[in-house]
Amino acid sequence: MTVRVGILGATGAVGQRFIQLLEDHPTFELAAVTASAESAGKTYREAAKWRVDTPIPEDVAEMEVSTTEPGSVPDDVDLLFSSLPSGAAASVEPDFLEAGYVVSSNSSNDRMAEDVPLTIPEINPEHLELIDVQRDERGWDGALVKNPNCSTITMVPTLAALDRFGLEVANVSTLQAVSGAGYSGVTSMEIIDNAIPHIGGEEEKMETESRKLLGEFDGASVTLHDADVTASCNRIPTIDGHLENVFAELAEDPTPEDVREAMREQPSADLPSSPDQFIKVFGDDEPERPQPRLDRTYADGMGVVAGGVQTTSGGVKYNCLAHNTIRGAAGASLLNGELLVEDGWI
Amino acid sequence: MTVRVGILGATGAVGQRFIQLLEDHPTFELAAVTASAESAGKTYREAAKWRVDTPIPEDVAEMEVSTTEPGSVPDDVDLLFSSLPSGAAASVEPDFLEAGYVVSSNSSNDRMAEDVPLTIPEINPEHLELIDVQRDERGWDGALVKNPNCSTITMVPTLAALDRFGLEVANVSTLQAVSGAGYSGVTSMEIIDNAIPHIGGEEEKMETESRKLLGEFDGASVTLHDADVTASCNRIPTIDGHLENVFAELAEDPTPEDVREAMREQPSADLPSSPDQFIKVFGDDEPERPQPRLDRTYADGMGVVAGGVQTTSGGVKYNCLAHNTIRGAAGASLLNGELLVEDGWI
Amino acid sequence: MTVRVGILGATGAVGQRFIQLLEDHPTFELAAVTASAESAGKTYREAAKWRVDTPIPEDVAEMEVSTTEPGSVPDDVDLLFSSLPSGAAASVEPDFLEAGYVVSSNSSNDRMAEDVPLTIPEINPEHLELIDVQRDERGWDGALVKNPNCSTITMVPTLAALDRFGLEVANVSTLQAVSGAGYSGVTSMEIIDNAIPHIGGEEEKMETESRKLLGEFDGASVTLHDADVTASCNRIPTIDGHLENVFAELAEDPTPEDVREAMREQPSADLPSSPDQFIKVFGDDEPERPQPRLDRTYADGMGVVAGGVQTTSGGVKYNCLAHNTIRGAAGASLLNGELLVEDGWI
Amino acid sequence: MTVRVGILGATGAVGQRFIQLLEDHPTFELAAVTASAESAGKTYREAAKWRVDTPIPEDVAEMEVSTTEPGSVPDDVDLLFSSLPSGAAASVEPDFLEAGYVVSSNSSNDRMAEDVPLTIPEINPEHLELIDVQRDERGWDGALVKNPNCSTITMVPTLAALDRFGLEVANVSTLQAVSGAGYSGVTSMEIIDNAIPHIGGEEEKMETESRKLLGEFDGASVTLHDADVTASCNRIPTIDGHLENVFAELAEDPTPEDVREAMREQPSADLPSSPDQFIKVFGDDEPERPQPRLDRTYADGMGVVAGGVQTTSGGVKYNCLAHNTIRGAAGASLLNGELLVEDGWI
Repeated sequence: MTVRVGILGATGAVGQRFIQLLEDHPTFELAAVTASAESAGKTYREAAKWRVDTPIPEDVAEMEVSTTEPGSVPDDVDLLFSSLPSGAAASVEPDFLEAGYVVSSNSSNDRMAEDVPLTIPEINPEHLELIDVQRDERGWDGALVKNPNCSTITMVPTLAALDRFGLEVANVSTLQAVSGAGYSGVTSMEIIDNAIPHIGGEEEKMETESRKLLGEFDGASVTLHDADVTASCNRIPTIDGHLENVFAELAEDPTPEDVREAMREQPSADLPSSPDQFIKVFGDDEPERPQPRLDRTYADGMGVVAGGVQTTSGGVKYNCLAHNTIRGAAGASLLNGELLVEDGWI
Repeated sequence: MTVRVGILGATGAVGQRFIQLLEDHPTFELAAVTASAESAGKTYREAAKWRVDTPIPEDVAEMEVSTTEPGSVPDDVDLLFSSLPSGAAASVEPDFLEAGYVVSSNSSNDRMAEDVPLTIPEINPEHLELIDVQRDERGWDGALVKNPNCSTITMVPTLAALDRFGLEVANVSTLQAVSGAGYSGVTSMEIIDNAIPHIGGEEEKMETESRKLLGEFDGASVTLHDADVTASCNRIPTIDGHLENVFAELAEDPTPEDVREAMREQPSADLPSSPDQFIKVFGDDEPERPQPRLDRTYADGMGVVAGGVQTTSGGVKYNCLAHNTIRGAAGASLLNGELLVEDGWI
Repeated sequence: MTVRVGILGATGAVGQRFIQLLEDHPTFELAAVTASAESAGKTYREAAKWRVDTPIPEDVAEMEVSTTEPGSVPDDVDLLFSSLPSGAAASVEPDFLEAGYVVSSNSSNDRMAEDVPLTIPEINPEHLELIDVQRDERGWDGALVKNPNCSTITMVPTLAALDRFGLEVANVSTLQAVSGAGYSGVTSMEIIDNAIPHIGGEEEKMETESRKLLGEFDGASVTLHDADVTASCNRIPTIDGHLENVFAELAEDPTPEDVREAMREQPSADLPSSPDQFIKVFGDDEPERPQPRLDRTYADGMGVVAGGVQTTSGGVKYNCLAHNTIRGAAGASLLNGELLVEDGWI
Repeated sequence: MTVRVGILGATGAVGQRFIQLLEDHPTFELAAVTASAESAGKTYREAAKWRVDTPIPEDVAEMEVSTTEPGSVPDDVDLLFSSLPSGAAASVEPDFLEAGYVVSSNSSNDRMAEDVPLTIPEINPEHLELIDVQRDERGWDGALVKNPNCSTITMVPTLAALDRFGLEVANVSTLQAVSGAGYSGVTSMEIIDNAIPHIGGEEEKMETESRKLLGEFDGASVTLHDADVTASCNRIPTIDGHLENVFAELAEDPTPEDVREAMREQPSADLPSSPDQFIKVFGDDEPERPQPRLDRTYADGMGVVAGGVQTTSGGVKYNCLAHNTIRGAAGASLLNGELLVEDGWI
């Protein structure tokens, strides 16, 4: 089966990752790329300032970029990936949904909306059924699924594993790569020989999205998980890969090996782009791992890597890492797209 | 009054900072510089690979480097600063103490020894009286005072301020500069475009030293503060300045402004190298501060800078920063030396 | 004598350096700061996003920012420093000159204009007399003097020293800091773990400005020096300090020591902000110097540092370095301002 | 056909690249890994601190490391790759050659020896016949071929292309990645926010090796090319990829497009690891390329990338780049090994 897909906002940093990930995809065939009005009518090669470290696929390079509106996208496109800025997404995504498109979106708007599934396929695939609620309420034929923020997605798979021991509190500090802010988001003057202990809106995203992802779906709505999640977010001078320190309080008292085992057993999903092992866990003998440059490409950037597990007076502390523009953005939307196909929504 | 001082281990990174800080010091006059046997007999200029960004003071450049043993240091030196590696310090410092020297040491050995004062002059100057206990027990005429580790000293002044609200738990994540590992401690291949979530022994230092610094001295011994302190330490690609995220649980419920006020009111010491205001605190309107490159030189590197104070379900979170090789190392020993003079131990 | 000065474009990166350099200046008193219309009416503290590593001088922080037009600047201001973007400068500087102001400008427009002196006080102070030509031709009472581009100013003092051996050809490669592009000129995604072998317009500036600076002034016009200068300009991940490799062909055959001696003897100017020794030269025993982080603050950033002098088949090769936003920008204009005062133009 | 190969010095940075490149090689089968005496007897996994960003191949991880002496390597190994430090190589390589092994070595010793071929397969494959001379003179059954230094190999392919226009002079400035110095060669304190204008011995290597590579072989010896080559070498804060600025004087006056064409036509070799197109050349419309992070992986790191071609008064200037630990080290030896097989020496 071939599914024809399009990318909304295809020329930006995340858009370029989508194109990279879709090259040689077993079922998805790229059929449309959209961008702002200034780029429309140009070839993709002309419109995009290509900065990924693999060449533009030749067929994509010659595709014509269209405007980001339903009328510009061919009708036979089955699935749209959205990497629009959240402001643009908030105004344009509804148009596509009304027009009947299925949209797997990385944009941050509407992630916490009650009728929008916020999904990591390995963690809460059942939340996808919120689409029925969504269609009822909004009266549209399309469907909207969101993936969480890059810093949230790095942490939540490990919190899900911890939750078998009763997750009560999670304090998390992040060391985030500059690519998370987009190509021009962080200037070199800001970050060389420096770190910035603030990323606008990021802490709130981590604190709320994580509780929705871990929350329970009863067929009609999601009840947020009752853990207290508090985040402090920092930007550091790395290109790709978010590293996070987690301090968790648990109801039970697992050993470090119990925790590592739980993380290793956290199931992967059986989707074309899923990693074989979802969470790779380093043991006591390699406390200095995971590291962004060495571990961000684990499972082609689609996995999560953890390490440094130690018990504390209240529970455990450990570190986790994921590739923020692959697993944390384009790859997350891609997997949600694969899940939509797998579950028959497309 | 002039106090003649010497530096044990004067050619290393911290030794160079001592020399920089002692230039133009109002009361301390540098009279001896020691290093390993290979350097003895050379001029300081020949022996040291000078890498600080101000020139070597001319008179120091021409000083002869002596070996690190009591017989090599002039008798009329009143105070020794030690920046030896902890292994060397453990074997050599006792010789100097037996020979009657007063030593203000940055080396990590013996910091937690029961009869050794671990002191930050602004926080626990009264612990210096442990010297009486020390002399009784060890039978030496000299005196040994230690300053804490660079990552500890960054955090403890803010914890001391918080303690008026009943400090119960502190989880802290550090983003530490490479200079903390010494000149060759972190290779460029390890850290460019990267971060390392482990610094050997650092977490335990933060967790124990902080409780001694905040502990109560009853005239005979120090009772550790009963707060739970848990640290996760990371190395990042910055040259100088440790940035730390603190998550604290408190007995009371102060507002962010209460916490900022408490930090601002944390008294400075009345010593020659003390900052006028010990802790500088950024308000709500500058959440992206403190930053290593912009704030590490606050008060010539002798102060602490905090910001990002927010309440959490259990207490508060905030960020703090200090210059690790000035306030966190050479400057800390220097201040302890000034306190020893002020309190009449010299 | 006190000279009242103003800064056109005071809120930008170079503008902030002007303010830093003018603090405690012996003769210049800051009396006006201008910026774009959006900033006018605000205090300087509100208008500028201050990023220099020393605090805003308190009196400047409270100054009201005015618009950048002659009517907004007090009449009793004697001298204006300009750090406007070249486009804005091209349209606004003439207004100030017609209104009779003396302007020392760092902006790149008009540097190669035949009647505009392009001056480094230590190299070609006599070119300042072009002001007479300029006033004749343009009919204005004011005066305009320019300083060269930051990468030019790093190299030209050493070329001037070489010229006593008959400079014929200079090939130069630059390793330039990101601050040269302004605060937002280079994104972090562009430069971390990277280098960019192109800076728009920079090579041409170096190739033409250097020949004007070294050219001969006959009382009426400047004849460009006839050396062939070819530049390749690179951006690298450093904050401040341009490092340059020069390959020079000479008519004579000096030894490396001859060349070092010529550079060391290159005279400084007797101005308030001049370095005592203009060019510091490292010898054979320190071939790894100059380096940006270690040497950019030489003479408070107002000097030039050279090293690595070796003979080649056609002449010599060597390296040179200067602080690009001090000696290469604000400090260069400041020195030209001091020269204008010294020579009686103000 | 399968060729059994071994790696001398397999645990170091270049050794790890050899292992990465040999994984899935069509004809080479890794049969022996050697290291220092301390590592002998351990599995490769235990002996090597693996830092490459792909996992250790499982079969290699379990191989037993042997000492670096002929008796420890199986007799049926046909070809040895050497990535020993040059001191160790100078003392050990002769033993292997006497014992009859064929060695393709990346070590810098003996590169300029008259009877040792210094070879880039695409540039001077015919120099390999020096092996006959070598065997005659040294009386050994084995054969030794060397590849040039990483900074040399980046430039020489483009100089070879230029030589059709009569290469007379080449001045080259390098911007070299830290990996070229080995894992611990450059400390982070040396290079963050900095550049170092000196790499010991590097300039001489570029100046001599390039003339041998471009030299003529008459069946008995190589006559060095008579171009004047002068190099200035700089270390900058990049992980991988050497970027170089070349200023060349030529007998003829080609246009930039002539030069680009000559580079593009520089033939590749028909070997298993050769790139399809040896030199990729960016045109006028992308003057900011090549860049280390974007272009070092061209042709899996086995190609050379050039750009920025412009004419100068004496000839041309341009930039070139190659991956220093792949094309500039392990990959260069690998290609020489493939050439040895192709030409029947094995």
